[in-house]
Amino acid sequence: MTEEFEKFLQTHILKVHSFHPFYNEAYEKMLNAGGKRFRPMLLLNVVKAYSPLLLEASMNAALALEMIHTYSLIHDDLPAMDNAPLRRGTPTLHVTYDEATAVLMGDALNTDAFYILMQSPIDAKTKVRLCEILSFNAGSGGMVLGQAIDCYFENNPLDETELEFLHTHKTARLIAAALQMGSVISGLSSELEEKLYTFGLELGLLFQMQDDIIDATKSKEEAGKPTNNDTNKNSFVNLMGLTKALKKRDEKVKELKTKAENFGALNGYFQKILDINFK
Amino acid sequence: MTEEFEKFLQTHILKVHSFHPFYNEAYEKMLNAGGKRFRPMLLLNVVKAYSPLLLEASMNAALALEMIHTYSLIHDDLPAMDNAPLRRGTPTLHVTYDEATAVLMGDALNTDAFYILMQSPIDAKTKVRLCEILSFNAGSGGMVLGQAIDCYFENNPLDETELEFLHTHKTARLIAAALQMGSVISGLSSELEEKLYTFGLELGLLFQMQDDIIDATKSKEEAGKPTNNDTNKNSFVNLMGLTKALKKRDEKVKELKTKAENFGALNGYFQKILDINFK
Repeated sequence: MTEEFEKFLQTHILKVHSFHPFYNEAYEKMLNAGGKRFRPMLLLNVVKAYSPLLLEASMNAALALEMIHTYSLIHDDLPAMDNAPLRRGTPTLHVTYDEATAVLMGDALNTDAFYILMQSPIDAKTKVRLCEILSFNAGSGGMVLGQAIDCYFENNPLDETELEFLHTHKTARLIAAALQMGSVISGLSSELEEKLYTFGLELGLLFQMQDDIIDATKSKEEAGKPTNNDTNKNSFVNLMGLTKALKKRDEKVKELKTKAENFGALNGYFQKILDINFK
Repeated sequence: MTEEFEKFLQTHILKVHSFHPFYNEAYEKMLNAGGKRFRPMLLLNVVKAYSPLLLEASMNAALALEMIHTYSLIHDDLPAMDNAPLRRGTPTLHVTYDEATAVLMGDALNTDAFYILMQSPIDAKTKVRLCEILSFNAGSGGMVLGQAIDCYFENNPLDETELEFLHTHKTARLIAAALQMGSVISGLSSELEEKLYTFGLELGLLFQMQDDIIDATKSKEEAGKPTNNDTNKNSFVNLMGLTKALKKRDEKVKELKTKAENFGALNGYFQKILDINFK
């Protein structure tokens, strides 16, 4: 399924005709740089489990999610925020080109995500719901709020509740949105949709915990981005120390593996990602 | 109608609950700083002329347009682009707060525009078309492309065709989208919709010409933003000199006043904006 998604992405990246010397190249650079495609895969696996015939029709929504995620990485890496030279193993846009290009390519991906979503070969009502979910979880009450808190409270320790609020918004909201969008495409009951969304929030928090642990323990080469970078940041490792963070992560993995058993056809996939990413 | 729009804006600005000390304030600062509300008014005047009963239901779309326009101003003013200290007569976001906040608030407004649009009390098919039009004209093939060309070719003179391409994308596309969105809400024929879109592109180009003239001739106080700022930029005044630019503008005003006569119920409004803004 990753292969189908990569092929869809390659054939659906928007291109423009203009005399700008590197516009298309800059636009697609971070989309093409790989990454785990975690959010699209979450969405597609929900659809695969509950209504596999709609898998192809879900590709636009999966790509829209990846575009929103990619724009957020480009902007988070800007000199005014993380000032990161490396992402997905490749130099960041403001390093390869300049800051203006990085801001603008992020902006374009943010807006274009909704254009790509609207081209989905599905009914209008479903598209409207998908657009609501994506924009709600990515926008001012979602991912952006998390990033703003992350930036503002650098060098200013948060307590555990505040840290969870930060990471729930910065990371978990879009991951939960991926599961919810898959549910909506599959026409699941609103009860199951809600359960998957809540599971997504917990899963997202767990992934952020793991990200903090990777930053504290892995080399730049292993992570594909600078590590040991969060020393002034609010992270689970800084808040509770590595030992406690590892313990909390392992407990959370166990807890989510048990919860995943309630999701029938999706259980196998959830077990797999919990095994692969947290061994 | 401006009053109704301002009231709608005031009551529909998204607010979040969080411990971030100035998040909501920063989010709404530029939306509240006034501005001509030109794009919302274009949309609302189309609806008023052709299907006045839908005026209230069009407010979300009008606000979405203003949010996209506002995000673009916030990002254009960033240090990496125009580095402007003043906008709409008030200090820019990166001056009042910091650069990270300015990037993030622009991002939030960009995404939230689509959320606000999806809340429109109109049918799903129309919302999907509005979302397509807005994202297409604002995204990588529209407004962002214009801004990227503007940035890249600073200090590097373009010819007249290239300059028109720049301004058509940077400014005219969103203005044309406003008229097209109004047409779609009003259920106009695709022929009339297309004619209004084309008229919008020409109107947008004329407004950009006027903006260049204001930059070259007005004081900071009169303009509400720094002027004499475009000396290294591609502008109509720099390309052809002030006298020729004024002449070209006046010819274009005359031409559009004649074209406007074909738009029946909208003619009066078009004549008025052409009179008020270009006397």
